[in-house]
Amino acid sequence: MEKVVVIGSGPAGLTACIYLSRALLSPLCIEGFISGGVAGGQLMTTIEIENFPGFPDGISGPELMMRMKTQAEKFGTTFLSEDVESVDLSKRPFKVKSTSKEIEAETLIISTGATAKRLHLPSEQKFWNKGISACAVCDGGLPFFRNQILAVVGGGDSAMEEAHYLTHFAKEVILIHRRDSFRASKAMQKKVLSNPKVKVIKNSVVEDVFGEDFLEGLKIKNLKSEKIEEIKVRGLFYAIGHAPNTAFLKGQIKLDEEGYIQTKPDSTRTSVEGVFACGDVKDKYYKQAITAAGSGCMAALECERYLTKVG
Amino acid sequence: MEKVVVIGSGPAGLTACIYLSRALLSPLCIEGFISGGVAGGQLMTTIEIENFPGFPDGISGPELMMRMKTQAEKFGTTFLSEDVESVDLSKRPFKVKSTSKEIEAETLIISTGATAKRLHLPSEQKFWNKGISACAVCDGGLPFFRNQILAVVGGGDSAMEEAHYLTHFAKEVILIHRRDSFRASKAMQKKVLSNPKVKVIKNSVVEDVFGEDFLEGLKIKNLKSEKIEEIKVRGLFYAIGHAPNTAFLKGQIKLDEEGYIQTKPDSTRTSVEGVFACGDVKDKYYKQAITAAGSGCMAALECERYLTKVG
Repeated sequence: MEKVVVIGSGPAGLTACIYLSRALLSPLCIEGFISGGVAGGQLMTTIEIENFPGFPDGISGPELMMRMKTQAEKFGTTFLSEDVESVDLSKRPFKVKSTSKEIEAETLIISTGATAKRLHLPSEQKFWNKGISACAVCDGGLPFFRNQILAVVGGGDSAMEEAHYLTHFAKEVILIHRRDSFRASKAMQKKVLSNPKVKVIKNSVVEDVFGEDFLEGLKIKNLKSEKIEEIKVRGLFYAIGHAPNTAFLKGQIKLDEEGYIQTKPDSTRTSVEGVFACGDVKDKYYKQAITAAGSGCMAALECERYLTKVG
Repeated sequence: MEKVVVIGSGPAGLTACIYLSRALLSPLCIEGFISGGVAGGQLMTTIEIENFPGFPDGISGPELMMRMKTQAEKFGTTFLSEDVESVDLSKRPFKVKSTSKEIEAETLIISTGATAKRLHLPSEQKFWNKGISACAVCDGGLPFFRNQILAVVGGGDSAMEEAHYLTHFAKEVILIHRRDSFRASKAMQKKVLSNPKVKVIKNSVVEDVFGEDFLEGLKIKNLKSEKIEEIKVRGLFYAIGHAPNTAFLKGQIKLDEEGYIQTKPDSTRTSVEGVFACGDVKDKYYKQAITAAGSGCMAALECERYLTKVG
């Protein structure tokens, strides 16, 4: 029986582990399946983080996560490199079923984050990983994208970041956005839109993709003129937001209409006593590494106080 | 006229500055009077931080704060090394009066933190800085405390930390606590109470201090037996909690009964539109460097979105 199980190993989960293990609670962190690309969270596919306080020269995502994991391990966190398939929160101890084990836990901290959304185009599945990707940073440097025309769909900071990253490899980057103006911060817009390799197509959506074995182009619809146009691109990268990773929780805990875990105000307490949530799985507003880390600390302190209270 | 003024330069204020300056908002940070010991916040008197995620080998408080300040400066934050004396939040632009200037600001982020509390003993003022201190880490290494018997008052993590720090210099450290058990985390209790230099006096309060020119001892009252006892100590260190630094805000903004700034749930918005609060000045529950930094980021993002909304 575990005193506390932490599900997820991004900045929220690992900060919770650092605090829990310093409090001698020996947490078990089910970090996700490493080769599946889940362990470590979204920062594992982030090249450079400039805004995590304490790193004035920036730090790469994987390096920051490795440092946090080392820190959690040093104080006594145990890691299990599996995914969680289901949980039973109907009574305590809670049951957590991972790929190969069934674990009992007195308390639970959920920090499974969120995942990039897809457009679900008619031919999307055919060209998935054959030109279509949800992660420019993961795939943009692959040989078949080099010196090609690539497209990014989206209007926020992530879209700008991905477009900027792709300019290192691509001949041209086309940023496609359904609205007239971008949600991205001014700093990012200034940096990216002034890059001569970046071209912008506004008020437009991707209707479908085409090609033979590999992606060759897009059908784009202008939402104002309703005109459909074909453009040649070799890569299409999605940067259209995220969905929380809560499928394994359905019916067990209170989620909002988008699937995010609901927590009490200024707290990480969920609808189930003894279960706490932190990071992007409960946050659709701030979604930063540093806010996730802060909420991971909150979850650990609330969990520790809860365990003290119930004995 | 400033777009945004940040008051305070601890982890909350500096993280806000990092995010604001990356968003090209050119924040002015009124960091406090450096020689007065205010700039940089409470971490400036913290020797070693083990639980700030990203630093597996630990980092000193001043080093961490220097790194955050460098990061904020790099992206375009301007610093003013003065204290804020008063503010006028009755209408926008807000007015901020520092030691030598009167500044107008469209928006304001308040991150002035909290300050260690005093016992207010009858002879406290006479022996202040002559044996009594509110900061073991600042003063414990001074020559007249070396190889002496020293006392710490308090029952939380800070009391444990201060007692542990003093064992490096003192002959003996007496931890005085008014209750029967300590609030401090088990990790800290285990570490400190097993130190052979540490002696514990529970269920007791300090009634007064005595000495000639310099502190020579304490009058201690046992709350169970009501007996008063004199003990010889050369130093008395307070570790009995904090009060928020909000005196300059009275009547201008909604504070709670203890003086902490009230914010909306899961937000840094205060009772005054365009004024945001982050860090220990609005948090009496978590009070960690990482939670302060997270809330500083929240304040910056909310401030940026507010400025976009009002134009």
